[in-house]
Amino acid sequence: MNPSTRSISDALGAYLAEPHADVRRKVLDLLRTPAFQIPLEIERAEHRARVLEALTLLADEGLGSLAYPEDYGGQGAPGKAIAVFETLAFGDSSIVIKFGVQFGLWGGSVYQLGTEKHHERWLGKIGALELPGCYAMTEIGHGSNVRGLETTATWNDEAEAFVLNTPHEGAGKEWIGNAALHGQMATVFTQLRVGGEDHGVHALVVPIRDEDGALLPGIRIEDNGPKVGLNGVDNGRIWFDEVWVPRENLLDRFATVTENGRYESPIDSAGRRFFTMLGTLVAGRISIAAASLSAAKVGLEVAVRYSEERRQFGPDDGPEVPILDYTSHQRRLLPRVAETYALHFAVRDLTERYATVVKGRAGDRPGHGGTGAEEADANGAGGEMAEPGSRPEGRSDEALREIEARAAGLKAVASWHAARALQESREAMGGRGYHAGNRIGRLRADTDVFATFEGANPVLLQLVAKSLLMQYREEMGDLSVLDIVRYVADRAGTRVRERNPVATRRTDSDHLRDPEYHLQAFEYRAERLLESAARRMKGLLDDGMDAFDAFNRVQDHLETLAVAHTEWITLRAFLDGVAEAPEDVRPLLADVARLYALERMEADRAWFLEAGYIESPKSRAIRAEVGALCRELRENARVLVDGWGIPDEVLGAVDVVGKS
Amino acid sequence: MNPSTRSISDALGAYLAEPHADVRRKVLDLLRTPAFQIPLEIERAEHRARVLEALTLLADEGLGSLAYPEDYGGQGAPGKAIAVFETLAFGDSSIVIKFGVQFGLWGGSVYQLGTEKHHERWLGKIGALELPGCYAMTEIGHGSNVRGLETTATWNDEAEAFVLNTPHEGAGKEWIGNAALHGQMATVFTQLRVGGEDHGVHALVVPIRDEDGALLPGIRIEDNGPKVGLNGVDNGRIWFDEVWVPRENLLDRFATVTENGRYESPIDSAGRRFFTMLGTLVAGRISIAAASLSAAKVGLEVAVRYSEERRQFGPDDGPEVPILDYTSHQRRLLPRVAETYALHFAVRDLTERYATVVKGRAGDRPGHGGTGAEEADANGAGGEMAEPGSRPEGRSDEALREIEARAAGLKAVASWHAARALQESREAMGGRGYHAGNRIGRLRADTDVFATFEGANPVLLQLVAKSLLMQYREEMGDLSVLDIVRYVADRAGTRVRERNPVATRRTDSDHLRDPEYHLQAFEYRAERLLESAARRMKGLLDDGMDAFDAFNRVQDHLETLAVAHTEWITLRAFLDGVAEAPEDVRPLLADVARLYALERMEADRAWFLEAGYIESPKSRAIRAEVGALCRELRENARVLVDGWGIPDEVLGAVDVVGKS
Repeated sequence: MNPSTRSISDALGAYLAEPHADVRRKVLDLLRTPAFQIPLEIERAEHRARVLEALTLLADEGLGSLAYPEDYGGQGAPGKAIAVFETLAFGDSSIVIKFGVQFGLWGGSVYQLGTEKHHERWLGKIGALELPGCYAMTEIGHGSNVRGLETTATWNDEAEAFVLNTPHEGAGKEWIGNAALHGQMATVFTQLRVGGEDHGVHALVVPIRDEDGALLPGIRIEDNGPKVGLNGVDNGRIWFDEVWVPRENLLDRFATVTENGRYESPIDSAGRRFFTMLGTLVAGRISIAAASLSAAKVGLEVAVRYSEERRQFGPDDGPEVPILDYTSHQRRLLPRVAETYALHFAVRDLTERYATVVKGRAGDRPGHGGTGAEEADANGAGGEMAEPGSRPEGRSDEALREIEARAAGLKAVASWHAARALQESREAMGGRGYHAGNRIGRLRADTDVFATFEGANPVLLQLVAKSLLMQYREEMGDLSVLDIVRYVADRAGTRVRERNPVATRRTDSDHLRDPEYHLQAFEYRAERLLESAARRMKGLLDDGMDAFDAFNRVQDHLETLAVAHTEWITLRAFLDGVAEAPEDVRPLLADVARLYALERMEADRAWFLEAGYIESPKSRAIRAEVGALCRELRENARVLVDGWGIPDEVLGAVDVVGKS
Repeated sequence: MNPSTRSISDALGAYLAEPHADVRRKVLDLLRTPAFQIPLEIERAEHRARVLEALTLLADEGLGSLAYPEDYGGQGAPGKAIAVFETLAFGDSSIVIKFGVQFGLWGGSVYQLGTEKHHERWLGKIGALELPGCYAMTEIGHGSNVRGLETTATWNDEAEAFVLNTPHEGAGKEWIGNAALHGQMATVFTQLRVGGEDHGVHALVVPIRDEDGALLPGIRIEDNGPKVGLNGVDNGRIWFDEVWVPRENLLDRFATVTENGRYESPIDSAGRRFFTMLGTLVAGRISIAAASLSAAKVGLEVAVRYSEERRQFGPDDGPEVPILDYTSHQRRLLPRVAETYALHFAVRDLTERYATVVKGRAGDRPGHGGTGAEEADANGAGGEMAEPGSRPEGRSDEALREIEARAAGLKAVASWHAARALQESREAMGGRGYHAGNRIGRLRADTDVFATFEGANPVLLQLVAKSLLMQYREEMGDLSVLDIVRYVADRAGTRVRERNPVATRRTDSDHLRDPEYHLQAFEYRAERLLESAARRMKGLLDDGMDAFDAFNRVQDHLETLAVAHTEWITLRAFLDGVAEAPEDVRPLLADVARLYALERMEADRAWFLEAGYIESPKSRAIRAEVGALCRELRENARVLVDGWGIPDEVLGAVDVVGKS
């Protein structure tokens, strides 16, 4: 690498490490130490012990409590907490997931759903890992459909306490991290019954083990057993048999039960209350998106560096050439590198927005109204969505709803991107990719479940699409689903037509590489998909189909819409990131953004052709331009992967580190 | 399941189990026994021991030697051998791969590359697992580029023997199955030097361990260590330090060295000799295609059965519905079920063709001329391909060349299909798919390398495309690459235009479901891609680009062509399979074929749109029809997966077996 390449590489690395370069560096220093280097072959029990040990070190460094208020050992810095999570994901995946369970889900639920008395009592201990705990939401019978949880907590007037109960075997809590071994308490999501009335899902803090690790009375726990990956995390099932939980253990930021057994909540609608509580999942989803990218970065860096060194075949009588010189190999890896960059900026942008809104809301009275399209809505039933009432909301509510939808979309797109990038990386390395020591296969198995937990991707994408449909509710006030769909179908049509560019036939390189063109194309697609989805829905509803069936019928359309919308947001964030980049790295990043945009257009060219947005010659020209960009960026492939700032000792791939 | 469904299910099962239902049953009986049930968590050393034990049982049943002649304990039935391999792949993947190493690659190389003296000496013992051995082709530095192997065997006149040598560390043999622990001998592919002359790659049988398992002098072996999957197979690296190998250990069907040190071969061209030797890989590639489908069948059956039972969400105030009722869920699984059926018939057809040709050739003088597009050509250099001369070939040569190309294409398409089907299955099961006890994740990790070994998929697809270009050589005699490309570019253009149907706008269901239309579309695409690839090549060569660079530049085009061609062959085989099916299952299979064809068209609709073969309304109509077929076939999903005939004890998925 010559000096000028090195300086671009360094500048790029410095730019990508911001913000929170300090905590990232701190985590990287830890990842270099033996405690964080998990052997390739390790038994489950030992793996779990090692992961717990690593968590202790992280807590000792104060890295577990960054998102909590200063009063409880934190820094009130959710963005920093996500940066820690993101950086940890360069290493053993079990560590990062157990970290997320303890400090993000368990601690996060106490912090966000609880009030001062809970914070004072538990938050400091949670951040210090003195009180390991669980986030017990999912049940065996109910994963995506959280609203259908069957665990019950019934208020008992005499005891002034709740009786927590698992009504049948299939209502046991499932896949609960920290449950099989280490958890001493759990935030348990349960149906709340007070005075014979059902108030929907609420969260109680429930002790499950004593300090010696013995199960408390009424608690039954079963190890979830061997998983495809993440075997260093002790997931388990939990059943409750008439467990008495004191009144003050109700996390009561959004609803409380008074001493004399009266249920009170500042949020009138049970639906809105529910969505608000699920809002605690947002930080987790952003974190998973970030960790997905870290895994993709490891895989792609290993594959790119290997492919620059590995030679195979060549011209007659010439030496063999590096496999990265093959165009099919470039096509396999470089668009994934570009997409990783794009999503990196999208996640960074979202993290900052989230941190800003959360800070602005700290100490607020609860007023957040939910997206109106959260988890429980993802069933396709439109009924819930229309549940307006008890508006208006403040500006920060609106911002948070937007952030929730973005987090859902980015989590889905980033986790699937990681799966693909890792798979391409594995195959690009041939047999050596199959060696466990090159990390890719292990990361692939570990991160596979990222597509499922914290909200299954298909469900999240339905949620994104519905939130796009529902955004017009603001303008229109109370509307039925049919009204909304009809309104969007008509309104969006006009907007889209106005924007349809005439350049369907331009095929010159200047035009095809123009970011303005990319933005227009991405916006056009997102808008038009919204319009056409609404029109299809409207047709079905007009024909008398009920909302559940109609939403079900257009699921693929809604999924396409959600991905297109997320890619549009991603491109915008990427272009902003290019604009703000230091001058010497800007041209390179601009080309990476071009590759991202054009390759995504190429991948979806069927849609652009169908829509008449491009014609065949242009479609072919886009493909050719993607090939040309890959050939050009091939020279900078190493700079681009180095920019991610993964130290060799952390990368640790046997066929790459120390080889070049 | 009602009686008539049951009877269709049984009839389907009986049809799919043919041919060789007898050996399939025998293997299934073994798979039910404890010896074949490998625990979910097992250490590498124990896993390897268990796999060896299972192999012993298979050998004891005579299942290892089915492809060998009767004189050596076999039945001369390569089709049966593939059926055994295919059925074994329902169980632990390490067993099937070690089975393939021992009986297919090691035994197969002795049988196919050796002559009677070798067969007499070793084949019986190999089939009985008394002589475990290796197939040592790949080197650390050379995987796909077999012709570039660096191991040398130099003839020594005085000793009348070969001196086998690994010239440097990176030329050591790599990923050799049976090498780390159990192999006593190895077929070693090496450059052969006789009297100072290089004769290219040949195969020697080399003892590597004594009967007690101690390494022989001059042999160094290193365990390949932990892999992403298949950890029950003992892969290793082998280095040779001046190892003396007796003259008679040269596998000399295609070339021999006389006692007085003269090299003789019935095949004049070194290139053709090389391709002929690589022909031994065909059975392995067909077997891997078959095993890929078995893995896909396990995953899809588990996911479909789970999805019929698992309920989540539902209409307002209604019960929750089975997740297979969701259209996005149907779209995830049912097209993969259909593609599994399609590829099943394609592999069956190819297996029978292969068995017929092999039987017809048994005892023939070697005359097979190679594909002209085998392994070593996959580098993109066109030089080799044009190497005609020493023609004409017999009809069976031509048939074998065709089979080699098909095997390459099907291996690539089927292994990628399995990866996708397993991934969709895993995600379709949500968190439960991540439980190791549901088998999908494990199968995914095990079969991941199917895309790489026995020929890396991208390399195989280049090979298929080149063989399509080269097929015209027959008609034209000696031609340069440029001549061939020019000829194909002109010729194919005429053919394609003649066939271009006028029905670009028909969108009615009758038309869209017409198998004749599907066939036309698949043929049109394959032909036109061949033409356009040739035209692009011609343009590049006319502009003065050399053949290596020109082939490199069009790699993505050639890959698309190869897949399209393979899908065309697959559809033809599937439709033949429908036509020959028992009357009561024919309508169901015909619908499955429709779904396969239309969904593949939908997936590639960008190409059909670009080519002007369909217009936008038709593209949308195809998508709608795929959705309709999915909804219709959803009712028969269970029948279709049951048809694969996997007994519950073999399926063994914790959340499915015994649950419905």
